[in-house]
Amino acid sequence: MSGHKRFEIIANGNITTPAGFRAAGLHCGLKKTQRNDLGVIAADHPCAAAGVYTTNAFKAAPLIVTEESLSRTGKLQVMLVNSGNANACTGDQGMADAREMRKLAAEAFGVSEDLAGVTSTGVIGELLKMDRVRGGIARLSDATHATAASGDQFSQAILTTDLVKKEACVRVMIDGVAVHIAGTCKGSGMIHPNMATMLGFMTTDAKISSATLHALLKETTDQTFNMITVDGDTSTNDMVIVMASGVANHETELTPAHPSWVDFVSGFRYVGEQMAKAIARDGEGATKLIECTVEGAITQEAARGMVKTIIGSSLVKSAVFGADANWGRIIAAVGRAGFPVRTDAVDIRLGGIEVLRQSQPVEFDEDRAEAYLKGDTVHIIVNLHHGEGRATGWGCDLTYDYVRINAAYRT
Amino acid sequence: MSGHKRFEIIANGNITTPAGFRAAGLHCGLKKTQRNDLGVIAADHPCAAAGVYTTNAFKAAPLIVTEESLSRTGKLQVMLVNSGNANACTGDQGMADAREMRKLAAEAFGVSEDLAGVTSTGVIGELLKMDRVRGGIARLSDATHATAASGDQFSQAILTTDLVKKEACVRVMIDGVAVHIAGTCKGSGMIHPNMATMLGFMTTDAKISSATLHALLKETTDQTFNMITVDGDTSTNDMVIVMASGVANHETELTPAHPSWVDFVSGFRYVGEQMAKAIARDGEGATKLIECTVEGAITQEAARGMVKTIIGSSLVKSAVFGADANWGRIIAAVGRAGFPVRTDAVDIRLGGIEVLRQSQPVEFDEDRAEAYLKGDTVHIIVNLHHGEGRATGWGCDLTYDYVRINAAYRT
Repeated sequence: MSGHKRFEIIANGNITTPAGFRAAGLHCGLKKTQRNDLGVIAADHPCAAAGVYTTNAFKAAPLIVTEESLSRTGKLQVMLVNSGNANACTGDQGMADAREMRKLAAEAFGVSEDLAGVTSTGVIGELLKMDRVRGGIARLSDATHATAASGDQFSQAILTTDLVKKEACVRVMIDGVAVHIAGTCKGSGMIHPNMATMLGFMTTDAKISSATLHALLKETTDQTFNMITVDGDTSTNDMVIVMASGVANHETELTPAHPSWVDFVSGFRYVGEQMAKAIARDGEGATKLIECTVEGAITQEAARGMVKTIIGSSLVKSAVFGADANWGRIIAAVGRAGFPVRTDAVDIRLGGIEVLRQSQPVEFDEDRAEAYLKGDTVHIIVNLHHGEGRATGWGCDLTYDYVRINAAYRT
Repeated sequence: MSGHKRFEIIANGNITTPAGFRAAGLHCGLKKTQRNDLGVIAADHPCAAAGVYTTNAFKAAPLIVTEESLSRTGKLQVMLVNSGNANACTGDQGMADAREMRKLAAEAFGVSEDLAGVTSTGVIGELLKMDRVRGGIARLSDATHATAASGDQFSQAILTTDLVKKEACVRVMIDGVAVHIAGTCKGSGMIHPNMATMLGFMTTDAKISSATLHALLKETTDQTFNMITVDGDTSTNDMVIVMASGVANHETELTPAHPSWVDFVSGFRYVGEQMAKAIARDGEGATKLIECTVEGAITQEAARGMVKTIIGSSLVKSAVFGADANWGRIIAAVGRAGFPVRTDAVDIRLGGIEVLRQSQPVEFDEDRAEAYLKGDTVHIIVNLHHGEGRATGWGCDLTYDYVRINAAYRT
């Protein structure tokens, strides 16, 4: 990732590693099993903050409420999240519930409502069991600590069909001072570019303005979270929130003019990419991660579009599940992505195995290809020899378990 | 379909029912099992003809060759088809093979090359076993007859992963004379709006010009073949071809000015719709047909786009497979389709069961909904109360078998 070590990975770090943050997670009764379904990130002081949201026209109530807080102040101090119910398409009552959650969270942590955000993930179209939510919030404050264990409880509380929690953390040196960037996220189904049923929370103790943070978050999500797909569905609830406590004692505020800006961006991007890849790898029913790189596209936009079409193709995904080197489906996806392509100049590789050169089939060792495709990460590389556009994205295979999980999600 | 009986359905009719057409189908060795894999439609005389083709940038060689013939003459007399190999992404050799197939077919039936077309469906990226194709074409002419049995052999010869043949036939009275319109098609995977791995062949004995036929075919495919999706993949080989022998003895050529034009269009559209629905119902692994109607959309284009997004959603498809009335996935699909929508005005029904009214959940009988969703046809109706746009499309559920079929298609 970085030649001269722009950042250091903190293997067991989580969102409480950056200074100034506490967290909690507990079970309040929204999930049927005893797993955590309510969590909070609470900062010691108001944080510079930024968010990116779903592009779905049906924005869930909590997103609207969080956007409202953030747009008023540019700051957040408390982020409340529940899993098990998305509070989406729940009409006026859903909006009232989201507002009540914000109010209760603000009161529980003694902050103004404008510094509190809420987010929900789970089933769409059912009303929240607010008695359980209220009971949970009442217990939340006492459970909130600055420990790694509390950060872990939060990371558990945001999961739905996810099999594993997803965390990343790095340390960057700024003005000779250690600055931390951490993230945790959830997402497994309804995952598609432009924010899916994906929640991401990032914390940092860097000193940075909300505006700078927002620009950085936008750029980072475009290259990470927005470059993954599990099933092509963009949910009503997607959001990535970043909060910066400013507690790290580096001399000058981070801006693109800061000499260590590139290091900070690298670390930030690394955390985003780790989270995005973790979501793709943990896609519903997935047995492997598909990483796809398109290079030599006529434009950057074309490269991005083709990557998304390839990793979004049910046929490509099924073939990878079956360890079948069916590159015809890859080129068919390139061809229907809707961008110009020189049809006689396409190279395709599966890892190190060349299967197509200048759009002509290459004899390859089927056994070697099958062995490669049976690994837990499959890299598809397409070179179009057409321009400078280049993009990478991540997806997963399509399996029996995806169908099983989604055939009876509510029941 | 028609209040005053615009056309009559001919239950056992097929492409040889319209006068002036013969057909054949046989096994030449491209498929591993003993199923037909080579077929021909041969007309007694040159036919007015029209075609619509895939939008995939990688057009398969046979499509290019057929388009070439058709664009030179506006006519076709012989259509050769093989299944088991798509002759797509096969480079210069593939193009040479398609040209040789056209030449051999033209010779076998004694017509000029410009009156012959070829089409292929099956695996992408492998060279045709031309020795087997040559041997098959040599036997084809003797097997070609004007009987229903021969038409049936052709309908079998175009299938790949399809489980059933797909045919439709109607009779329309024009100037007091019986005119026939028939169609056969294949398609099961790689099915998505804008021509999928879908081949459609229509015959009619009507007197009609190539230009009129082309306009009618375009309009009909937009409302039928282009409104189905199985898996969102648009193939390199899709094409629908229609041939009009002109043998029916009605007085005046059919044009939009003809008094019976509406009847002919209704019959033509019916044949197209029956074929499209048959493809969707026979989608790879499908257990049921999903019919989706969006009404009250701001524009026709929005209605079409939303229908396609809903029937293309893996989550909606999985829920229908599991007989789970998870309408949240339907509204999420509406919201991400990329068209304006009044988010507080959406009604959703599953057959006769109302589940959402003015974007608010409606209490409904879950058992009744489950029973409905267990049927072999599920109708999703969305009313947006936003404009006059209306469209209907067809898809199928996503099942374990879809994954099984596509995890090891080549092996």
